Amino acid sequence: MFKRVVIIGFGLIGGSIALSIKKHRLSKELIAWDIDKDCVRKGVELNMIDGFAETISSAVAGAELVILSVPVGEMRGVLEQIDLKDQIITDVGSVKGSFVEDVEAVFSKVPPRLIPGHPIAGSEKKGMVASAEDLFEGHSVILTPNEESDETALHKVSKLWRLMGCKISIMSVQDHDTILAKTSHLPHLLSSVFSESIYSESDRSAALAHAAGSFRDVSRVSASDPAIWADIFLANDLKLIESLERFMVGLEKIKNKIASRNHSEVKNFLERGKAVRDHFSSITKEL
Amino acid sequence: MFKRVVIIGFGLIGGSIALSIKKHRLSKELIAWDIDKDCVRKGVELNMIDGFAETISSAVAGAELVILSVPVGEMRGVLEQIDLKDQIITDVGSVKGSFVEDVEAVFSKVPPRLIPGHPIAGSEKKGMVASAEDLFEGHSVILTPNEESDETALHKVSKLWRLMGCKISIMSVQDHDTILAKTSHLPHLLSSVFSESIYSESDRSAALAHAAGSFRDVSRVSASDPAIWADIFLANDLKLIESLERFMVGLEKIKNKIASRNHSEVKNFLERGKAVRDHFSSITKEL
Repeated sequence: MFKRVVIIGFGLIGGSIALSIKKHRLSKELIAWDIDKDCVRKGVELNMIDGFAETISSAVAGAELVILSVPVGEMRGVLEQIDLKDQIITDVGSVKGSFVEDVEAVFSKVPPRLIPGHPIAGSEKKGMVASAEDLFEGHSVILTPNEESDETALHKVSKLWRLMGCKISIMSVQDHDTILAKTSHLPHLLSSVFSESIYSESDRSAALAHAAGSFRDVSRVSASDPAIWADIFLANDLKLIESLERFMVGLEKIKNKIASRNHSEVKNFLERGKAVRDHFSSITKEL
Repeated sequence: MFKRVVIIGFGLIGGSIALSIKKHRLSKELIAWDIDKDCVRKGVELNMIDGFAETISSAVAGAELVILSVPVGEMRGVLEQIDLKDQIITDVGSVKGSFVEDVEAVFSKVPPRLIPGHPIAGSEKKGMVASAEDLFEGHSVILTPNEESDETALHKVSKLWRLMGCKISIMSVQDHDTILAKTSHLPHLLSSVFSESIYSESDRSAALAHAAGSFRDVSRVSASDPAIWADIFLANDLKLIESLERFMVGLEKIKNKIASRNHSEVKNFLERGKAVRDHFSSITKEL
């Protein structure tokens, strides 16, 4: 499908994309760049990629498709090293507004052949070693082209992800960031605040020794990489805070219902939450 | 080990206890009572139990061990129908303070052969049909005897759970309720409030269609039975509200750190959360 795909940033996501491209034979040549040279060397040894580049500018020079998979906070520095030719460029960042800002800051506008993207999949694990060839299979990929986007570029980026087993959604940058604030950034934040709330407890060890299912699930994503998620939270700060404040209103409500011992209102509240979760379960197979 | 065990309340927990007792051959005779007669009839058909009783009083009359596994809010009504002889009695309720209050209200004090208990295991699924013989295997069971508890009764209840594959912890009623507020009741509440926060969103369908791992895990236990959890939240209201308020302080803190765009403080906060979760992962195999 492609002659030469270049992956910039060879971590969990970049590594998993490489494995999936290899599995589905989507590129004749597959090259990666990472600031950690041992990591890309290892990628070549493991046959995940065909070679690695020493610099970003040399990596993207002859590329047909460039996939940017560095942390959100490092994106601008990477973009500054790209000499725009006729490459198709896409990214995998969790926040699209800040990515477009970075792109506009570097190239003055979004180049028509740059299609912002975000595969809705991940793991609390970190780094290339945690890569999985099926990480994206069955998941959604959101693309946020604008009116000037090149149709061929959009088509090719869509097709790459579809062939990797993904469903494609097209939406605006704003809608993406609003939805992700609610469905991903907020639950990540809640998970971290929940785990952090145990940190300074005097009975922390006893608590952890007796924690079970609800603790396990609610706390899972708090094991994610702190630097990457600090980037994401700050990149989507306004929408995240908006979601967080709405959540805090809900917390106050249920707190008052519990404090006033209003059983039927507590139950009604829990029923609405259950309806949402049951709906989610009914539309997803990934449980 | 026992001649006649009687299970009062034949739902997810009661049914799973029955399966485990059968699997490990821990009682010569195993009888259940439930308000839903079809459910216990089905239990006999499936060979989960040897028979069922029409009334609670007849069920417990000849029992050597009575296990109370009705919802927390129905406990007092059940206790009122028990004619105390020399049965050993235990329960599986998620709140021990309210159980002891119910017991004291009915029997004026906690009978020596009544040992409050709580297996730290469960599921968001509901009812006898969701029973699993290994639900408790590898999990903790907390027992909260007092100074007047009968040693033999405590020993026998402990042994039953140990033979079902559980680790036993002995602690006070207060410590149990404090720990469970933090590790179980709070995450259940957060999960429900999180799911409920999506309920009235205009983009709810789009949001759910693009939700992935963090949404799935944080929302899982919000599918739990609303009536049962309304009972639990009200039964442990003071300690739950205390935990909730501490959590809300954490939310305010991280909100301010994000609003002031303090990357290193956000990162430090997330690192403390990650430390707790990593500690939990290191001491539990159940991941």
